[in-house]
Amino acid sequence: MAAALTPGRDSERSSAEAVFLDACRRRPVPYTPVWVMRQAGRYLPEYRDLRAKVDFVTLTRSAELAAEATLQPLRRYPLDAAILFSDIMTPLQGMGVGLEFNPGPLVRNPIRTPAEVDALPQLDPQRDVPFVLDAVRLVRAQAPRGVPLIGFAGAPFTLLCYLVCGRPSKEFSEARTFLYADPQTAERLLDRLADAMAAYLAAQAAAGAQALMLFESWAGLLGVREYRRFALRGARRVVAALRPLGVPLIYYLNQGSALLEAVSELDVDVVGVDWRSPLGAARRALGADKAVQGNLDPAALFAEPGELERHIDGVLDEAGPMPGHIFNLGHGIWPDTDPDAVARMIDHVHERTARGARG
Amino acid sequence: MAAALTPGRDSERSSAEAVFLDACRRRPVPYTPVWVMRQAGRYLPEYRDLRAKVDFVTLTRSAELAAEATLQPLRRYPLDAAILFSDIMTPLQGMGVGLEFNPGPLVRNPIRTPAEVDALPQLDPQRDVPFVLDAVRLVRAQAPRGVPLIGFAGAPFTLLCYLVCGRPSKEFSEARTFLYADPQTAERLLDRLADAMAAYLAAQAAAGAQALMLFESWAGLLGVREYRRFALRGARRVVAALRPLGVPLIYYLNQGSALLEAVSELDVDVVGVDWRSPLGAARRALGADKAVQGNLDPAALFAEPGELERHIDGVLDEAGPMPGHIFNLGHGIWPDTDPDAVARMIDHVHERTARGARG
Repeated sequence: MAAALTPGRDSERSSAEAVFLDACRRRPVPYTPVWVMRQAGRYLPEYRDLRAKVDFVTLTRSAELAAEATLQPLRRYPLDAAILFSDIMTPLQGMGVGLEFNPGPLVRNPIRTPAEVDALPQLDPQRDVPFVLDAVRLVRAQAPRGVPLIGFAGAPFTLLCYLVCGRPSKEFSEARTFLYADPQTAERLLDRLADAMAAYLAAQAAAGAQALMLFESWAGLLGVREYRRFALRGARRVVAALRPLGVPLIYYLNQGSALLEAVSELDVDVVGVDWRSPLGAARRALGADKAVQGNLDPAALFAEPGELERHIDGVLDEAGPMPGHIFNLGHGIWPDTDPDAVARMIDHVHERTARGARG
Repeated sequence: MAAALTPGRDSERSSAEAVFLDACRRRPVPYTPVWVMRQAGRYLPEYRDLRAKVDFVTLTRSAELAAEATLQPLRRYPLDAAILFSDIMTPLQGMGVGLEFNPGPLVRNPIRTPAEVDALPQLDPQRDVPFVLDAVRLVRAQAPRGVPLIGFAGAPFTLLCYLVCGRPSKEFSEARTFLYADPQTAERLLDRLADAMAAYLAAQAAAGAQALMLFESWAGLLGVREYRRFALRGARRVVAALRPLGVPLIYYLNQGSALLEAVSELDVDVVGVDWRSPLGAARRALGADKAVQGNLDPAALFAEPGELERHIDGVLDEAGPMPGHIFNLGHGIWPDTDPDAVARMIDHVHERTARGARG
C-alpha cells in the first residue's frame, strides 16, 4: 500500500504506526497508545453535521463518507489508531440479508431453519461491499500522522444473535434458545458466518487495514460450555483463516468476565476487555502471550476532570508496567459524552505513561 | 407464627422447610432443594388466567391475589421454596414514588438531585404496604407440604438504577453517569434505600417469611471499584440491619462474574449466581462459608429432554458434593417456557441428588 501514502511524512507515519502495532505485539512502546471504541460517531458535532445530510446506511455504503467519518476524530484528537466507520451488519447486507437500522439493526427475515441457513449466500467482498474496501484505501491515503487503520467485523455468534432474533435485545432469548433447541443448525450457521467474515477481513487487510478486530458483543450472554461450543468455535474459524496474513488480530468480548480462560485459547494478539473485568485479573486469565485493550467505564467520562484522571490511573495501574496494553474504553463511547472529556482522557494517558516506566 | 400453620401437617411441614433452610445454612440435606426465579408468573396458564382478570399493579397490591399467584406453582410442582409474588418497585410505590408498569417499571419523576433524594419519605411497611405483609401471612397459612416462604426486596443499587433512569434500560447509562458525576448524592440515595429495604424485609420476616432475598439485578453493570463503593455499600447496610433476625439471607447478583470476590465480603448465607459463572469457580471466589443458589441458563429449558438433563447434570457437577447448594435457574424463567420442562427439571434434580452422595 506504499503508493497510497501521503508523500513527505513517512518517518512520522512509521513512528505513529509503530506505537500501536508494537503494543499489539507486546513490544516496548514510548507511551501507551489510545483509541476509543465508536470514536467516529454520535458524540462528535462534526459527525452529527454529516448525519444531518445522509442517513446511516448511506454513510456506511459510501466510501467517501465512511472515510470522512473515520477521519473526523483523528483530526480532533491525537489518537493512536483509526477504526473504519462501518457497521457489523454491513457485510450481511452485502450478502443480501434485508436490513433496516432504527437505530439498531432490524433483520426483515430472521434465519432459524436449516434451509434458511443454507440459503445464505457466501460473501464476495469485491462484488458485495466494494465501498468498504474503497473506504479503507481512502483512509490509508489520508490518515494524519500516519495513524494505522483497524479493519473490523462482527464475530460469528454476535451476528447469529441479530440474524436469529431479527432485532437488538437485552437477552437475545430466541438466539440462546436456538443454540439449545437446534445446536447442529446453530453450528452450521456459525461456520458460514465465520467463512464470510474471514473473507471480509482478509479483503480489508488486502486493501490496507493494518490490524483486524472481531467484535463479540453478545457472547457474554453464554455460559462457559455454550461459549466454547458456539461462540469460540466461530471465532476460532475466523482467526485460523486470518492468522497466515501476519496482521495483528484483536478480539473484543463484552460481558466476558467468566469467559476469559476460554478466550485464552483463541490465537489472537490482543483481547479487548470490557470495564467490568479488572485488567490485572484479565491478564492473569488470558496469559502472558496476549496484549489487552481497554477498559475505562464509558460512564467515567462524566466525572469531574480530577476524578476522571483518578479513574484512568486506576486502569493504567491494573494494566501494570508490562508491555502489551492499548488504552480504550471498556465499551463504545456514549452519544452524550463531552468531546472535551475525550481530549483530556487521551492527553492524560499519553502524559502519564510517557513519564512512567514504559519507555 | 405457629398459630398460622395449617393443623395436622406439622411433621411434613417441618421436614420440607428443613431441606431448604438447611441447604441455606450449608447443612447436609437428603436431596438438593429447587425453586425457580419468577416461578409464579407468565409461563403458567393459571397465572395468565389470573392476569386476564386484573392488571399487574392490582395483583401486587391485593394480599389475596398475590398469595394466590405465589401458591400456584407450589400446587403444580414439588418445589422446595415459595417466593412472594410481588415486584421490587412495590415498596417504592408505597413510599409515594409515582410508577406505572409497561411491562417494566416507569418512574414518573426520576430522582437525581440532593433535594429529590432528601424528599424521598422513609418506608413504614405496616402503613405503606400492609397488603404485602398480609400476603406473607396468607401464604404461610396455605402453603402445601410446609414449603417455606422467601420474602424479598430489590438491592439498593438496583432500585437506584430505576429511580435515576426512570425506566428499564440495557445500559442504565444515566444511573452509571450519576455515580461518577455526583457520587456523594448517590451514596445518600443508597443509604436511604437501604434503610427502607431493611425495614421492608424485617417486616416480611415478622409476618412469617422464613428467608429473605435481595435482588441485585443491575450491579453487574459496575466495575469492581464502583461496585464496592456503591452497590456493596447499599447491600451491606441492609444485611447489617437484618443479621440480628437470625433468618437466612440470600443475595442474588446478575452479571456478577467479575464481582464475586467482592461479594464474598457480604455477610449473607447464600449467593445466587447467574448462569454465566460456573458454580465451581463461584464457590472458590465466594469462600466456604457461603451456600450458592443457581444456575441453569433459562434457555436450557428449551432443549430436548435428554439434553436438558445433561445441562442440569452440568450444574450439579459444578456445585459439587459439598452441602450448600440450592438449585435454581441463573435468571428469571422466560415467559414462553414449556411448563412441562420445569416439571422435568425439578424431578431430575430431586432424583439425581437423592441417588447421589448428598444424603
